[in-house]
Amino acid sequence: MTSLQLSAKEEMVERFLDAAARGDLTQVSTLLSNAASLINETGYSGWTALMFAARNGHYHVVEALLSHGCDKFSVNSSSHTAFDIAKFWGHRHISDLLGRTDDRCQRVLPGSDLNQHENYFNRETLDRLAVKRTDKVWLEAKQNNPDTVYLLFSNLSPMVNSSQEDDNARVETKLCRFRYEAVKELLEKPATVLIFLGVEKRKKPSSSSSKTEDGVQEPPAWFAISTNEDPAALLKLCREKNCSFPKLPNRDLLKFSEEEAGVVAQARSTLAWHDRYSFCPTCGSSTKLEEGGYKRSCLNSDCRSLKGVHSTCYPQVCPVVIMLVIHPDGNQCLLGRKKIFPAGMFSCLAGFIEPGEAIEEAVRREVEEESGVKVGPVQYVSCQPWPMPSNLMIGCMAVAISTDIKVDENEIEEARWFPRQQVIDSLCRGASPAFFVPPRQTIAHQLIKHWIGMNSNL
Amino acid sequence: MTSLQLSAKEEMVERFLDAAARGDLTQVSTLLSNAASLINETGYSGWTALMFAARNGHYHVVEALLSHGCDKFSVNSSSHTAFDIAKFWGHRHISDLLGRTDDRCQRVLPGSDLNQHENYFNRETLDRLAVKRTDKVWLEAKQNNPDTVYLLFSNLSPMVNSSQEDDNARVETKLCRFRYEAVKELLEKPATVLIFLGVEKRKKPSSSSSKTEDGVQEPPAWFAISTNEDPAALLKLCREKNCSFPKLPNRDLLKFSEEEAGVVAQARSTLAWHDRYSFCPTCGSSTKLEEGGYKRSCLNSDCRSLKGVHSTCYPQVCPVVIMLVIHPDGNQCLLGRKKIFPAGMFSCLAGFIEPGEAIEEAVRREVEEESGVKVGPVQYVSCQPWPMPSNLMIGCMAVAISTDIKVDENEIEEARWFPRQQVIDSLCRGASPAFFVPPRQTIAHQLIKHWIGMNSNL
Repeated sequence: MTSLQLSAKEEMVERFLDAAARGDLTQVSTLLSNAASLINETGYSGWTALMFAARNGHYHVVEALLSHGCDKFSVNSSSHTAFDIAKFWGHRHISDLLGRTDDRCQRVLPGSDLNQHENYFNRETLDRLAVKRTDKVWLEAKQNNPDTVYLLFSNLSPMVNSSQEDDNARVETKLCRFRYEAVKELLEKPATVLIFLGVEKRKKPSSSSSKTEDGVQEPPAWFAISTNEDPAALLKLCREKNCSFPKLPNRDLLKFSEEEAGVVAQARSTLAWHDRYSFCPTCGSSTKLEEGGYKRSCLNSDCRSLKGVHSTCYPQVCPVVIMLVIHPDGNQCLLGRKKIFPAGMFSCLAGFIEPGEAIEEAVRREVEEESGVKVGPVQYVSCQPWPMPSNLMIGCMAVAISTDIKVDENEIEEARWFPRQQVIDSLCRGASPAFFVPPRQTIAHQLIKHWIGMNSNL
Repeated sequence: MTSLQLSAKEEMVERFLDAAARGDLTQVSTLLSNAASLINETGYSGWTALMFAARNGHYHVVEALLSHGCDKFSVNSSSHTAFDIAKFWGHRHISDLLGRTDDRCQRVLPGSDLNQHENYFNRETLDRLAVKRTDKVWLEAKQNNPDTVYLLFSNLSPMVNSSQEDDNARVETKLCRFRYEAVKELLEKPATVLIFLGVEKRKKPSSSSSKTEDGVQEPPAWFAISTNEDPAALLKLCREKNCSFPKLPNRDLLKFSEEEAGVVAQARSTLAWHDRYSFCPTCGSSTKLEEGGYKRSCLNSDCRSLKGVHSTCYPQVCPVVIMLVIHPDGNQCLLGRKKIFPAGMFSCLAGFIEPGEAIEEAVRREVEEESGVKVGPVQYVSCQPWPMPSNLMIGCMAVAISTDIKVDENEIEEARWFPRQQVIDSLCRGASPAFFVPPRQTIAHQLIKHWIGMNSNL
């Protein structure tokens, strides 16, 4: 394809997207009948014609694009589908149309959302292949395999490469990936912790993957290494410039692509467990690492933890509820701030689930403890693994049945009912917003967006 | 009220319930116009007229009872509402009517289910009052208070009283409750673990509660005591007959009332944590119990766990996914059995959530690992704290996108697709069912029932 052809095609895509954005049904249909391949083309930031039509509330264009078989599940560079966009901008007739599905799954499980939430840290690009964790021979072969990818952690931070992007000065963080040759000396050190993360999920075998004895190609395996060697010396292992071990996980670990974020969540939370659980909690003895880094067994042969299966030997995950509480009038939400938050930031209330407690009860208890507000119905929305160090954030919407606020000052500094319009201004970063919410990578942000999109009249 | 009056009233209730069960709208209306107080009367096993009408599919009677203002949220002795009953028996037009709500909450949070699932072990009858856990003076006053209730645990089993009920030979298990005088010697023993469970949730102050200095009555506090004293000697502390420490938690802890089950879940899972986490996992030193039994602090003053807040110091809850996987044809579900199950029993698949993993991803991974079946959409249904020893069961429905079964024999013995009718036969204990499912107290049972009720054509 010559550059001339490319630009002609680009121009056609531009016209097509523009027609969809303007709601020009005639032109959309004409262009499609001339070039059916336009249907899923994307423009700036990965926006499709369907997204533009959904953004601007053009119902008939959305309908026409769907009938031409467009992919309604594709996402733009902010990971939003046309459905998300219609919901956010309050075009409910369009979000209903896009949410509707005559798909098999919807018949089998009414109300199931094919278009399921995916929060930052949620994406799994690796198959964890837990069955191989006990296969020492297989694991060792993978360790020595030249295709294997190693990530390097120091003090629970992964080594990353941060490059300034040319156009918009946006900083993108990427994981530094190492091969066996570069890390084999580190692997010999007794203090090194090695975790088998899994193998790449792949549909088609690629040329870079290795062949097993029967000729079947296996996708590359990934490992995480945690070491207490001097970080400055470790950085020299990498050939790229601008490498570092980020210092502020709550900020710096939110700059990866969705794909890498999922791997970071898995590796960091498992390594955090090794960091804090080196000793057997049942008898206080030292432990040894087993099963590809997913088990620690007590070295005291008399220990009770060696009889039967005990949770003390496996990585801990702490379930946390995080909830957006809606005022009984439906037009305000309850947000709070901790002293340690940046000035002006408010977020959803949250707290650890206690033993013997259901998710919904934990929501009610935490909200009442922290803010004095009583909660009625609770609805699960989505969840997010949060590797600081190893939480599972369970995100819910809840309806208040009382409105007086009485803050527990040990927990939070302030809690307030925020009117919907103020929340929208804050999300859209309008002129001098009264407050701001945590960034889009957090489930708190997504819960707030979920509410705004839910029955907005924007 | 004389016995004659009582029996006349009983007869009227009987006629009213019978009319509702037969769908006799005229008689229901006539009886209600004569005696409006009939509306919420109950008969055998706590069934209301609404439940009978819902059971037998009498839409117009349900409608009439609702318009007369009957309580649609009341539950029968199996904790089912009329809505549950209509759903179970496949009267979808009636469950839709009963599920519909013009209530504020539904407007505020569309799709929120006022009639939320409550599984066994979920009910919280105590206010945990976490804010008092650090108030040593208050806690000590409560310990010595004559109204305070103590539960006694030996080897993680609560002391219970099991009485044969007169009529139907059903065995009911009740917690043995002690006063301060009976347990004060136990409280002095160094090996005793004491947990503050909370105070009774009460709307009105009762005469049995104690007064504080300002004259406000406070509801009784509850504590759990774990002791390693001789169980036979402990049993003598109780004045009641038929006391024991049950041996098989998975069976014996399912016989409490809903109210007591919730308390048992809280107490047992917290005590199980103390039992297994006596030593600091970060440095291996001994720990001391703090904050009413909700914290263990390391006794080594140099330990990292004393700087900042660390999950190692707080009770562990292990999040587990448990899921009913539906065949793409919508008419079969996937159940599996472990070798340790009783012969003939099949249940939902389940597994621990791993670090860095979302609920929905854990469902997909576990199902594929255990059965080879690939899963698409996943939907949260309800959850259940399971104190064996301290799991949080997160119950989901999922739709399969592949159907071939390949069992991981390390995990389960067998997995099969069961046709809907076979599952219904099993639940209804029809003639020689092909298999059986776990008892109603388990979330597995409730998920299966949820599916059957979902779009059944019974």
